[in-house]
Amino acid sequence: MNVRIAKNSGFCFGVKRAIRIALEASETNSEIVTLGSIIHNPQMVEKLNKKEIYRVDSIEEIKGRPTLIRSHGIKKTELEELKKKNIEIIDATCPYVYKAQQYASKLSDEGYPVIILGDESHPEVIAIRSYISGENYVVVDPLKIPAKRFKKVAVISQTTRSIEDLKKLIQALLPMCIELRIINTICSATSVRQEASLKLAQESDLMIVIGGKKSSNTKMLAKISAQFIETHHIETEKELSLKWLKNKENIGITAGASTPDWIIVNVYNKILKCLGNENKMVNNVKAIPGFKEDQNVV
Amino acid sequence: MNVRIAKNSGFCFGVKRAIRIALEASETNSEIVTLGSIIHNPQMVEKLNKKEIYRVDSIEEIKGRPTLIRSHGIKKTELEELKKKNIEIIDATCPYVYKAQQYASKLSDEGYPVIILGDESHPEVIAIRSYISGENYVVVDPLKIPAKRFKKVAVISQTTRSIEDLKKLIQALLPMCIELRIINTICSATSVRQEASLKLAQESDLMIVIGGKKSSNTKMLAKISAQFIETHHIETEKELSLKWLKNKENIGITAGASTPDWIIVNVYNKILKCLGNENKMVNNVKAIPGFKEDQNVV
Repeated sequence: MNVRIAKNSGFCFGVKRAIRIALEASETNSEIVTLGSIIHNPQMVEKLNKKEIYRVDSIEEIKGRPTLIRSHGIKKTELEELKKKNIEIIDATCPYVYKAQQYASKLSDEGYPVIILGDESHPEVIAIRSYISGENYVVVDPLKIPAKRFKKVAVISQTTRSIEDLKKLIQALLPMCIELRIINTICSATSVRQEASLKLAQESDLMIVIGGKKSSNTKMLAKISAQFIETHHIETEKELSLKWLKNKENIGITAGASTPDWIIVNVYNKILKCLGNENKMVNNVKAIPGFKEDQNVV
Repeated sequence: MNVRIAKNSGFCFGVKRAIRIALEASETNSEIVTLGSIIHNPQMVEKLNKKEIYRVDSIEEIKGRPTLIRSHGIKKTELEELKKKNIEIIDATCPYVYKAQQYASKLSDEGYPVIILGDESHPEVIAIRSYISGENYVVVDPLKIPAKRFKKVAVISQTTRSIEDLKKLIQALLPMCIELRIINTICSATSVRQEASLKLAQESDLMIVIGGKKSSNTKMLAKISAQFIETHHIETEKELSLKWLKNKENIGITAGASTPDWIIVNVYNKILKCLGNENKMVNNVKAIPGFKEDQNVV
């Protein structure tokens, strides 16, 4: 019997960094707030609550407390309002998202209509879009492009979209414009997680996918894995069922980019315990067979 | 029996314009020269010879005569040399090629390495390339891209390449760079001729393709047509063979972008004569069934 984790699993660079910044800030402040959930993982949000890192949903609720900007970023007008109100800002915007915001601003200033490949209701896209002063579009389906011809047009992407979708969008746009300026703002963390899960799913007879039920990147991992093998998407080890493990030779684990290491470790150890392998239990995600820390992802 | 011409055939906008400029200039000058063949059509070149429009192959051969720059353009250094020598310049560079030269220069000045999709030995590509001061590459096979990663890179194309090849090049480049700036410098005259020939070939049982044996766009029309039906590539009506026409119900004609109208008319009339239909002979290419003048092609 063999329990392995997908090579690239769990916290991505941007999430890891945001959590670290939040924890460091909480050490020197009695209380801090995050504008919106810091990540889409209820267990982590709960844990941060205990360290007096609270979520607020509007600037009115901040009430003078130091305010962390989550990895997805916030709208330009919100940032300006925080500054105007002299609120202490702890900026945990993912550097890749920040770059996308800067490109959005620059391209728009240079007179390009800007097309964002992404979901217009996602906080990251809302934030990026707010940096565009002129003509802009959000395209969720790469084949459904604006019905017009452009002399010039620029394209950027939500950092978590696939390169395949970006390629499709460009194919569709090319005959519709003279100049097409693409900034590839996709972060490879998403695609490496998907590829690693797919590979492990093909080598396993059961897959356990760990992450927030609302986390879209975790849901995508479960979807990919389910194409190959019996797959269960759980948030914590409490949801594990002994009957899933029966007669399984190769069990695979993977986790979304917002799933903390300790939840992955708990799930791994619970599986080993169920299978009577307590002696192989681990203290750290790095000790789980198969795990490999992300390389520089861009 | 039915003899038709492909909807888009013969002179493209740029060639038509270059010939017109040459003829107008010859009216007010005793003698002019073209630096290189004005077009890849020996019969037209011979005709222009009679109007004292001569081809030279180097600046030394010009000997003070007014000099026509052909539609493919010439190298930046050559243009500078002509100016320095106070030679009268008659610029018949195709406006679409001129635009590609200007973009090449601008993109290079803005610090972009520039990739040209095209044939590095073609005069148009040689001319465009000469406007690039920095790093540049010519890619003839869209799947064989430079083996390196780019922070930013620009792409332009020889005006006669297909949009499909440009798409392939972009697909290959996208994962290799952060910023990809594409200027679609392809002229649609080439693709509309190919599409029209393909359509007519599918509806015919014989295709006659007219144009210079060295004209690459004519050769491409013959190649496309030959995939569907018996096809003969000829330069003039003298090459027509009666036996090709035997038992043919639908005969299609097409011609490359450098094939003059009078050659097309001669071929058409010769076919009608062979078939005993002299009464249907025409004086003008526009009178051949199926012909339609190009719309604004860009």
